Amino acid sequence: MNREKQLIQIIQETFPESKDFIGDDAALVDLSVSKLAISTDNFIEGVHYDRDLFSPYNIGWKALAVNISDMAAMVAKPLYFVVSIALARSSLGSNTHEEWVREFYKGLYDCAKEFGFPKLIGGDLSSALHETAISITIWGAAPNGTQFLRSSAQPGDKVCVTGKFGNSGNFWQRFADLKKTDPSNLQQWLDQEKISERSNDYRRHLRPSPRLGEALNLEGRRAALMDTSDGLAQALIEISKQSKVNIEIDSTLVPKDLYIDLSKALFGAEDYELLVCCKDIPAGFIQIGQVKDYTQSPSVVDLVTNKILEEVNVFQHFN
Amino acid sequence: MNREKQLIQIIQETFPESKDFIGDDAALVDLSVSKLAISTDNFIEGVHYDRDLFSPYNIGWKALAVNISDMAAMVAKPLYFVVSIALARSSLGSNTHEEWVREFYKGLYDCAKEFGFPKLIGGDLSSALHETAISITIWGAAPNGTQFLRSSAQPGDKVCVTGKFGNSGNFWQRFADLKKTDPSNLQQWLDQEKISERSNDYRRHLRPSPRLGEALNLEGRRAALMDTSDGLAQALIEISKQSKVNIEIDSTLVPKDLYIDLSKALFGAEDYELLVCCKDIPAGFIQIGQVKDYTQSPSVVDLVTNKILEEVNVFQHFN
Repeated sequence: MNREKQLIQIIQETFPESKDFIGDDAALVDLSVSKLAISTDNFIEGVHYDRDLFSPYNIGWKALAVNISDMAAMVAKPLYFVVSIALARSSLGSNTHEEWVREFYKGLYDCAKEFGFPKLIGGDLSSALHETAISITIWGAAPNGTQFLRSSAQPGDKVCVTGKFGNSGNFWQRFADLKKTDPSNLQQWLDQEKISERSNDYRRHLRPSPRLGEALNLEGRRAALMDTSDGLAQALIEISKQSKVNIEIDSTLVPKDLYIDLSKALFGAEDYELLVCCKDIPAGFIQIGQVKDYTQSPSVVDLVTNKILEEVNVFQHFN
Repeated sequence: MNREKQLIQIIQETFPESKDFIGDDAALVDLSVSKLAISTDNFIEGVHYDRDLFSPYNIGWKALAVNISDMAAMVAKPLYFVVSIALARSSLGSNTHEEWVREFYKGLYDCAKEFGFPKLIGGDLSSALHETAISITIWGAAPNGTQFLRSSAQPGDKVCVTGKFGNSGNFWQRFADLKKTDPSNLQQWLDQEKISERSNDYRRHLRPSPRLGEALNLEGRRAALMDTSDGLAQALIEISKQSKVNIEIDSTLVPKDLYIDLSKALFGAEDYELLVCCKDIPAGFIQIGQVKDYTQSPSVVDLVTNKILEEVNVFQHFN
């Protein structure tokens, strides 16, 4: 048995519900829904995650979580996903190929189980020369009728968000700084971080929880909706542009921990919270602003400073 | 406008039919079929293709062609696909990011147009540190009722194939040898190769044609079917194992050019032809053998040499 087949066997053991789907040229599914939401996201070593920071388990978890967050942003119930990995030998650390794959798929499985339990129905597994590249494609049942597009905000809507902002970006910044200035203390720092009062930062960066439950509660409403994977400010600007409206926020209402700077809460990325613009405040959300008529050009204003939020400090995955 | 948005604009220009799908968290599609075939394939620089050999256009073409070949292997009409790219700066050669992306998507578009015209409905675009990684996921309408699985062969079936074998593997071998022994002459050799009597090898390695038309003609039959992306011998062994049957072939019947060694035709990979086991010879196929009762263990025998084909020389994408 060659190595690829050995690794596929590990995947089949980890996802026992998927055994009928794996092993032919393509997976076949019977579909009872008429409208599908489809999304795909890369998770690339050295770009989306640091190999010194992420265990294979956490790589699996987060690679799927960011895709489930895209389903949440369309109020779609996750049904199926496929996983492509190009695995570099140098990414294995002290793991064998088999250990890495087992832990990675365990992370995927646990994340799937916690968020709507989409079925793994296929994928591809190959090697890579220098760094590991993961791509997940997910699809879900989208509600018939209403579409939760970025272009659906209307003047008078309340601007609401889930959760808290800035923890993930804050953690990442501190990790990246330490890696530059004092790499020999990285492991010790990480061990402390896990149990400190800031452990929330650690958890939210490494193992984010997409807001699927809050999203699915929105079914039946008319709302503009998106996740905040590129930061809250970027999401506000995007909805303002796509809906051709102005947005006013009160930045003192942006939910965050006391030790998090406001700029991190607004511009830090990868929080995977939801931003919604709709008539009433939905369960699980709090209001931070409101949608106004379009005046000169779509813009987002912070009423506290009276300044326009600009698209400058936004985290970029393409440089 | 940031670079990612500029590049997305190029994609929208290249795929004008896809403009409604691109730009939100997920694409939404209305689905009129009840059974979907889904497949995903990596196309990784340094593993699946060599950057000295493939232009961005040909990378796009082949990355999609190998996925359409998986649809063909399930007799599924390609409907939709998504494309994830992690693009390394060092992969650009003399191209700008914009030029690379434009050529790559042009290759995708031309391949899509020639083979069933599936719609591009989304993707992800990010950077990579050292090498470019591409992953495509494709969906198609699978026929109701019959399934063209690897496990569907029955004793008495005729074993049939499309096309010719060994050209792609032959080309790859000669390229890899020359790259090792005389890299300074690589470009000159490639220029000659394009116009030589062996230009068929060049074309079939760089711009393969999946056998979608031949596959769709199989609808209504009971057949075991797969593509020969990992080589003809490997495909025969796989069907023999999955269907629990023996297979006898007459290797003199394997279609190939005169200058191609039989071992290349049997074990060379990436021909993207089809192998089918069914009652009668379908249009566009020729017979090379027959399916026999299972005896001691599933095996494939060449009646010319009376030897069992072993899974040894098979091309591996995972080392």
